[in-house]
Order: sequence, then structure tokens, then C-alpha cells
Amino acid sequence: MLFEDSVFLRACRGQPVTHVPVWFMRQAGRSLPEYRALRGEGSILEAVRQPELAAEITLQPVRRYGVDAAILFSDIVVPLAAVGIDLDVVPGRGPVIAEPFTSAADLERLRPLEPEEDLSALLTTVALLVRELAVPLIGFAGGPFTLASYLVEGGPTRDFTRTKALMHTEPATFHALLERLADIAAASLAAQVAAGATAVQLFDSWAGALSRADYARFVLPASRRALGALAHLGVPRIHFGVGTGELLDLMGDAGAEVVGVDWRVPLDSARRRVGPGRALQGNLDPAICLAGFAPAASEARRVLAEGGRTGHVFNLGHGVLPATDPEVLAALVALVHEETAETATQPAETR
Amino acid sequence: MLFEDSVFLRACRGQPVTHVPVWFMRQAGRSLPEYRALRGEGSILEAVRQPELAAEITLQPVRRYGVDAAILFSDIVVPLAAVGIDLDVVPGRGPVIAEPFTSAADLERLRPLEPEEDLSALLTTVALLVRELAVPLIGFAGGPFTLASYLVEGGPTRDFTRTKALMHTEPATFHALLERLADIAAASLAAQVAAGATAVQLFDSWAGALSRADYARFVLPASRRALGALAHLGVPRIHFGVGTGELLDLMGDAGAEVVGVDWRVPLDSARRRVGPGRALQGNLDPAICLAGFAPAASEARRVLAEGGRTGHVFNLGHGVLPATDPEVLAALVALVHEETAETATQPAETR
Repeated sequence: MLFEDSVFLRACRGQPVTHVPVWFMRQAGRSLPEYRALRGEGSILEAVRQPELAAEITLQPVRRYGVDAAILFSDIVVPLAAVGIDLDVVPGRGPVIAEPFTSAADLERLRPLEPEEDLSALLTTVALLVRELAVPLIGFAGGPFTLASYLVEGGPTRDFTRTKALMHTEPATFHALLERLADIAAASLAAQVAAGATAVQLFDSWAGALSRADYARFVLPASRRALGALAHLGVPRIHFGVGTGELLDLMGDAGAEVVGVDWRVPLDSARRRVGPGRALQGNLDPAICLAGFAPAASEARRVLAEGGRTGHVFNLGHGVLPATDPEVLAALVALVHEETAETATQPAETR
Repeated sequence: MLFEDSVFLRACRGQPVTHVPVWFMRQAGRSLPEYRALRGEGSILEAVRQPELAAEITLQPVRRYGVDAAILFSDIVVPLAAVGIDLDVVPGRGPVIAEPFTSAADLERLRPLEPEEDLSALLTTVALLVRELAVPLIGFAGGPFTLASYLVEGGPTRDFTRTKALMHTEPATFHALLERLADIAAASLAAQVAAGATAVQLFDSWAGALSRADYARFVLPASRRALGALAHLGVPRIHFGVGTGELLDLMGDAGAEVVGVDWRVPLDSARRRVGPGRALQGNLDPAICLAGFAPAASEARRVLAEGGRTGHVFNLGHGVLPATDPEVLAALVALVHEETAETATQPAETR
């Protein structure tokens, strides 16, 4: 496999590394002046339909920051749009669904994804990137609960009341909806891997809105279905959501080699919850980066101390905030590389 | 003390109870038709300046639901307005501060609270209520981080970037700000107790936005200052924030007899984190109530099983959502009372 010995893939597999690898969720996009110069403020959906442009946007943070992995510039709702859901991604607000799902009849609007046809632009972008990149490319998809919440609520929500009501009043419909979304995610991720991605991340960003009982009953089976369908591909599977401190063990059990952790849970606590044999990704508070480099560096050192050198992919605990100064992120990459390389001669077991 | 043998105060103290007591955060207000009939959609600040009206609104859910405690109808920003901060509470949005705090000079705008003068309407409301109520009255105040976030951000925020930047770049200013807010909270709560409230709740609603390290360093000392100032009053102190699963032990250590838990953390896990000698309050997902009574009842039974009969005050994991059907809440109160009374002859240790 490509990049088999890269520090990023080795860390995902819990193998000894020469330094802790680092990348940032949402490293491409609005926080970069070169991105804004290229694109302006239009919908992300237009950009991802142009492979040369999407590839260039994906490469921008790799060049600028020297991160250890690239992540495809796309959006979790792209496969939904591709199967015919009428939606837009409104800058500053998020995905907006023209006709929200309300009943079992809406399930028919979610036909299976045929990646070669439905995602041809995205797969072309992957192919272009694989030729250019000197680091692994992470493919990604939206997790079933998060996509279901957009379809049911019609857009971003604070309380998830419609989604939770559907879940509890029509559990069979909800289950069928999440199964279709799991299959769409799995098909999209498998196609990205076939095109050259060497790791995948399933973003179930809002799963942390659920109680542990609801997550275990209504979401975990679908996540397991999506991640399980990728097991034979042999690429690391990363699984992440915000505010999922109570779900970390279940998210690992769903079939992830790497569990993403937001900034609320210290990584040493997270490691106890997730158990042995899985790596962690995270978890600097993205808001700290807006306070300047000194506080961010201090917090990053704490994250490194709590995360340990092995089985740790350094990242933020959520996406880069648009107002982030890229200089801070560049300096953080250097810090992570330098400070974890210093102890590279220690045995990997020392953590 | 008034209501010394009430089931609510006994549960707060971990004493044996005849049934698990129940009340709901935001039980008074927008979800009740009798409230909307009385008030319409104006700012809550106008209502709390009218003691007869505020007392009536406080009583409405006690009459309708038969809850085991009343909570004063007010808002956490009332003491800020009382010391002269120009603010409004905008329906559907939340508190909006006319001139957000940006530097140490703004601290002068937070003079000490003189409750007898500054909160005379609120204290009159408490006095009116104590004459009427057959259950304990909970006084409340906003926690230092949450109030600081409104002052610094100028209103509700998703990312708390300005607040966290001030915290990390001007820690002395931030510390002084939280100290003043802690003193305002303590003065307000002590005055409510003097007027007849028999328990207090410190709502640091948004403290869960912080990493454990930031909470311990920047917020815990102020919470300890506020709660510590009330220790000699002998009333149960409840401390709550949303998404505080990683902070529950610290919030107990801050000086709370009762730690409020949102719906994300199963109460048996929460009890392990908080440790012995403290009661728990929570933690039904408020969104479940919008799915109807059957799912809410099923989840409530799980909460009761996880919470145990002793040292548990049944509540939602956050405030009642405005679209909640009051019939569902009424039925939940009956369920909690009936199902926990059945086993009332069991020894209290059985949990």
C-alpha cells in the first residue's frame, strides 16, 4: 500500500513512530488566505465539482503547514446531493435540505450510491491528488446520525428534537434511514480508497447529542455496518464526533482503528475508555488557536503529554475555526514534530 | 428550617426518601399555555420586575405538575442588569450585552451587588412565594464562566472564542472578572436564602465548553468561591452545566451537595465520577419529551434505574424545551412518584 511506512499510517496502527503525526480537521478552506483568494464565498458544492480546484484546495494546507496527512476537500453532504437530495450548503449556516424527511415514504428518496457515476468529480480529485501528494490522503464521509439529522431537521439544529422524535416514535423508519446512510457512506469511502485514499474518517459529528443508551440502540448498529463494510480494505478507519466522551468505547467498537476525541476529554482518560489496540486522534481546543501561539503551544504540550507518543495522531478537537491565524497552525505543526522527535530514541512502550 | 423533612431536601442530602423527588429545569415559562396567556412574548426582564407576576409564573408548574420543588422565575442575567450592565434578553436568542467586555477596564462596570436594593423585586417575589408554597423554593444564580461568556462575547456563542482568548491572553483580568461574578452570584443566592429559598442552584450552563485543564485552572476557583460563601447557610447547593461529563467530580469539589448531570452521562457513571457523599440531579433528555409519553416514560425508567432511589433528584438533563407538551411532563411526575414509591419499603442502601 502507498505510504505504508508513513508516520501517519504507523501512528494509526499503533506502531512506533519517529514523531507524532499531525493534521487538522478543516485544515483546507476558509481559514487560509490562499483559499479565499482562489474561491471567494460561494457554496462548497460548486468547488467540489471541479477536480483541479478541489485538488488544489486540498494541497494548500499540506504545502503551508507540512502536515502529515491530507484530507480531501469536500463536504459530508456531497453523496446526498449526488443521489438526488435537493440541498445547499449555505456559508455561515451549513447544509439546508429543501424538503426535510418526515416519514418512511421519504426513504425512497435515498437511492443507493453508485460512486463511479455519482461521485465522478470527487474520485477524479482523489486520483489527481494521489499523483501529487507526498503524504497519505484521508477520504471521508458523514456518519449516519449526523446526515440523518440534516435530512430530518432540514438543516443544522441545536436540540435535534425532530430527529430524536422520529427515532423514538418510528424506530423502524429511523433504523432503515440510518442503514441507507451507512451504505452510502461505506460506498463513498470504499470508492475513495479504490481511487487512492489510504485512510478514511467517518465524521458522525453530532452523535454526541445522544444519550449513551440512544446511541447504542439507534446509531451504533449503523456505524458498525458502515465501518464493517470497509474492514477488508485494510486502511485505518478513523471515527469522530464532538462531545462524544461517553461514547468513545462504543465508537471504537463500531470498527475504528482510530477514535477521534474532542477537547473535553483528556487523552489519558480517553485511552482508558477506548481500551488497548486502538489509536487516538486529537484533541487541542480549536478556540485556543485564536488566543495566539503561546497559549496554544502550552495546551498542545499538555495534549502531547496526555496522548503519549504511540498510537496518537495530533489534531484539533474539532475543525479549524475560520478566524484562525494560519501562522499559529504552522507553528503548532513544527512544535509537535520537534518536541516528539526529541524523544524518538525512547522505546515505544514508554508512555 | 422550612421543609426540612421534604422529600426534595432529604434527597439533596442523601437521606432516605418516600419517593424520588422531581422538578424540571425551566418548568416555569414558555412551555406552559397559562404562562403564554399571562405574558405573551416580551422580555423576561420585564416580568421578573413584577413580584406578583413572577410569583404566579413560579407557581404555575407547581400546581399543574405536582413537582417536589419550585424554582424562582427569573434569569441568570438579572443580577448583571441590576448592577448596571446594559443588556436585554431577546426571545429566541438569549442575553445580548450592549457593550461587551474587552479589557481589564471593563471590570469597573461590575460593581458589587447590594441585593436588598438591587434585587428588591426578586426578593419580594421570594417572600411572596414562601407564603404560598407547599414545597421548597430553589433560588438560583448564573455561574461565573457562563456569565463571563455573555459579557465577553456580547451574547450567546457557539465557539466561545473571545472568552477563551481573554482567559488565555489576560489570565489576571479573567480571574478578576470571574471573582466579581462569583461574588455577585453568592450575594444573590445568600439574599434569596435569607428571603426564604431553601436550596440554591448555581447554573454554570456553558462550563462544559472548556477542557478539563482550563476548567480546573480558570473556573473552579471562582465556583469554589461562590459556593463556599454559602456553606454556612446550611441549604443544599446544586451545581449544573451542560456537557460537563468530564467535570462532574470538580463541580462537586467546588462545594455542591448535588451535582446536576446532563443526559449524556448515565447516572451510574456520574455517581462513580462524583464519588460518595453527594447527590445527583437529572437526567432525562429534554428532547425525548417531544417524542411523546411512551418513549419519555421508557427513558425515565432507565434514568431511575441508573440513578438509584437515594441521593437522586429526578430532572431533565437541561431545561424544558418550549415545544414540550405539558401533559407529558405531568405524566412523568406521576410516573416518577409512583414507580419509586412502590419500593419505598426497601432499605435505602439498595441501589
